Amino acid sequence: MDISERALELHKKLRGKIEINSKYPVKSLDDLALLYTPGVAAVSMEIFKNKESAYEYTSKWNTIAIITDGSRVLGLGDIGPEAALPVMEGKALLFKVFGGVDAIPICLATQDTEEIINIVKKISPTFGGINIEDIDSPRCFEIVDRLEKELDTPVFHDDQYGTGIVALAALINALKIVKKDMGDVKIIIAGAGAAGVGITKILLKAGAKNILVTDSKGVIFRGRTENMNPYKENLANITNPENIKGGIEDAVENADVLIAVTGKQGFITKEMVSSMSSDPIVFALSNPEPDINPNDAKDAGARIVATGRSDFPNQVNNSLAFPALFRAVFDSGAKKITDEMRLATAYALADYIPADKLNEEYIIPKMTDAGIKESIVKAVLEKS
Amino acid sequence: MDISERALELHKKLRGKIEINSKYPVKSLDDLALLYTPGVAAVSMEIFKNKESAYEYTSKWNTIAIITDGSRVLGLGDIGPEAALPVMEGKALLFKVFGGVDAIPICLATQDTEEIINIVKKISPTFGGINIEDIDSPRCFEIVDRLEKELDTPVFHDDQYGTGIVALAALINALKIVKKDMGDVKIIIAGAGAAGVGITKILLKAGAKNILVTDSKGVIFRGRTENMNPYKENLANITNPENIKGGIEDAVENADVLIAVTGKQGFITKEMVSSMSSDPIVFALSNPEPDINPNDAKDAGARIVATGRSDFPNQVNNSLAFPALFRAVFDSGAKKITDEMRLATAYALADYIPADKLNEEYIIPKMTDAGIKESIVKAVLEKS
Repeated sequence: MDISERALELHKKLRGKIEINSKYPVKSLDDLALLYTPGVAAVSMEIFKNKESAYEYTSKWNTIAIITDGSRVLGLGDIGPEAALPVMEGKALLFKVFGGVDAIPICLATQDTEEIINIVKKISPTFGGINIEDIDSPRCFEIVDRLEKELDTPVFHDDQYGTGIVALAALINALKIVKKDMGDVKIIIAGAGAAGVGITKILLKAGAKNILVTDSKGVIFRGRTENMNPYKENLANITNPENIKGGIEDAVENADVLIAVTGKQGFITKEMVSSMSSDPIVFALSNPEPDINPNDAKDAGARIVATGRSDFPNQVNNSLAFPALFRAVFDSGAKKITDEMRLATAYALADYIPADKLNEEYIIPKMTDAGIKESIVKAVLEKS
Repeated sequence: MDISERALELHKKLRGKIEINSKYPVKSLDDLALLYTPGVAAVSMEIFKNKESAYEYTSKWNTIAIITDGSRVLGLGDIGPEAALPVMEGKALLFKVFGGVDAIPICLATQDTEEIINIVKKISPTFGGINIEDIDSPRCFEIVDRLEKELDTPVFHDDQYGTGIVALAALINALKIVKKDMGDVKIIIAGAGAAGVGITKILLKAGAKNILVTDSKGVIFRGRTENMNPYKENLANITNPENIKGGIEDAVENADVLIAVTGKQGFITKEMVSSMSSDPIVFALSNPEPDINPNDAKDAGARIVATGRSDFPNQVNNSLAFPALFRAVFDSGAKKITDEMRLATAYALADYIPADKLNEEYIIPKMTDAGIKESIVKAVLEKS
C-alpha cells in the first residue's frame, strides 16, 4: 500500500487522532463533589473575583485553539473546514507529543476576515493561546496582526513564524558550512505568501541585509503596481535595497541563497541554480513536492539543499519549532510571543548541532533527535 | 477543610481537569508521515469530496462543544466566561467518564443571542454535537431552538432537557410508590427558567395533564401580562388547563406533586407542603441549597422528597442522563435529539430500579450504580 492508502486506513481505524480525557481518576461521589458541584462553585467564585486566576485553576494555561478556515490547507488549497480537520488534529497531536501543549482544532465555516477575528476574540476566554493555521494570504496577515494587537493572549501563526524560525535555523548552519555571513549574502525568497513573508521578516531580524522576494510577477520592488497588497508594499519597503526589477531568473543570478516556498513543483530550474554564486544554498520548501527535486538541485551545483520532506536530508519541519516554543511561552506565562523569542528558538535549533557534527546533509535537527524541546524551552525562557 | 477549600486545593493541583491527548503512540517518523503530512493529505481530499466522511476519519463523530456565556452559572449567576470554565471542564469530565464522549468547553465573551448562535454555527464543522450550558433564560431558549432548527448537528441543553429527563424518571418511580397516575395528578412546577420549562415539557410528553407553572409573579395563565415573554406565553398555552390564577400558595393546595427549581433556598414552606394532597411528592431541586430542607418537607408530611444533592436520598442529578444520552446519539449517528430519545432516557433511568428495590428513598439510580449508561444507550438506540 502507498502512503495515502495507509493514511486513510489508519485514520479510519482511529476515527480521530486526539481525544479529551479527564486528568483525574474519578472513583467516588466525593471526587465528583470536588470536581463538579458543589465544590467547583468555590473555584468559579475565585476566578470571578480575579479573572487571572483562571490560569491557576483551569486548563487555560496550557490550552490553545488551532484556528483555520480551511482556505489554504497544506498544498491542497481551499478545501473547507471539514476537510481541514484531519490536518488540524495532526497539528494538535504534534503540539501534545512534542510540546506537552493541549490543543483543540476549531475549523471555521467562514472565510470573512472580520468574522474570524471576532470569533477568535469571543472564544478566547477558554484558551491560553491561539494558533492560526492554513488561512490564505493576505487574509492571514490581517487576522494575525489584529489578534496580536487586540488579544492579551499569545498568538502564533505557524505558516509564517514557524516556517521562518526553522528556515532561519537551517540557513544559520548552512552559512557556517559555506563560511559566509548572514549580513553579506544575497538571498532570494521565491513566494510572497505566509511562508515567504515569515522567512523574510525573521531573516532581516537575524541580520540579513540583501533579500529579494519574488512572486508570480517577479521581484517585488518599491513602486511596483501590479499584483500588490499592503503586505507586499511592506515587503518592498524592507527588502530589495537596490530596488531591482525583473523576473526570478534575473534575481537569482549570483545569489548565495535561494529559498523557495512557491507551492509549485518544478518552479526552480537547474538553470537558475547554475546561475547562482559559489556554494549555492537552495531550500525548496514547498510540500508535498519541493520547488525543485533535490537531486536536480545538486546536479546543477547546489552545495546544500533542504526541503520540507522527511525522505531527503535537511527537512525544514515546522514541528521542530512550534510545540517547543509554545511550551516555553506557557511555562513563562508570557502574553505575547516576541521576535526575541522566535529568534531564540531558531538559534537554539541551529546550535543543537555541534560543529563537529555539522555537514551538508545535517544542517537542521531531525524530529527524532532527543532534547530539542528542552534546548528551545531553555533558550526562550531566557528571552521572556 | 470544608469542601470549598478542598475543591480549591484540588483544582490548583490539577491546573485543569481535562487534557487533550494523542490517541496514537507516535514512535517514528513514519507514524508522523501517516498522521500528518504527507499522508494526511489523502484524508483531507477524501473529506473534501464527501463532507460526511469527516465522521469516519476524524474525531468529529465523538466530539462536542460545551457552549456557555457564563450568564447563569450553577446558582452563582452572571459570573462571566472565565469563571464558568471550571464548571464546563467538570461537565467535560463527566461527559467522558460517564459517556465516553469527548467534550471541550467553549466559554464565550459575548452574551448577545444572535452572536452566540452565529459563533456556534461557524465553529460547528469541528463538532458532532453541541451542548448549551448555563446561559440565562429566556435567551437560552431562543439559542437552543434556533440551533436545533438551523444546524444539522444534535443540540442538547442540559439545563432544560437533562433536568427534565431525570426529574421525569424520578417522578415516574415516585408515582409508582404512591400509586397515582401521571395523567391524573396535579403538578406544580415552581420556577419558569430553563429547568422549569424543560421539566414541564417532558412531563406533558409523558402524559401529565394538569401542570401549573409559577414564577415570581405567581401562576402563569393565559392572559397574564405581567413578567411574560414568548416562552412563558407558550407555557400558559400548554399548562394550566383550568386557567387558574393566584400565588404559589394557592396553586400548591391539593397538589400531588411539587417540583421546585426556583434557585431560592427556603422558597417552599412547610405550610405549602402541608396543604398538598395525600402522599405529597416534593422535589426541591435547586442547587446547592434546595428550595426546602428535605427534613422540613418530611416533617410537613411529604411522603417522597428528592433534591439535587448527593448528601440526601434521591439525588436528581443530570449527570445520570446527558453523558449516556449523548453516547447513544453518537452511536446511532442521529443528527437530531428527539422527544422520543429523551423520553426513552427517562424511562430507562426509572426502569433501572426493579419493583422490589423501589422505595421512598430510592426512586432514582445513584451515579455509582453500575450499568446505567448501558441501559440508557440500549433504550435510546431503539428510538433512533
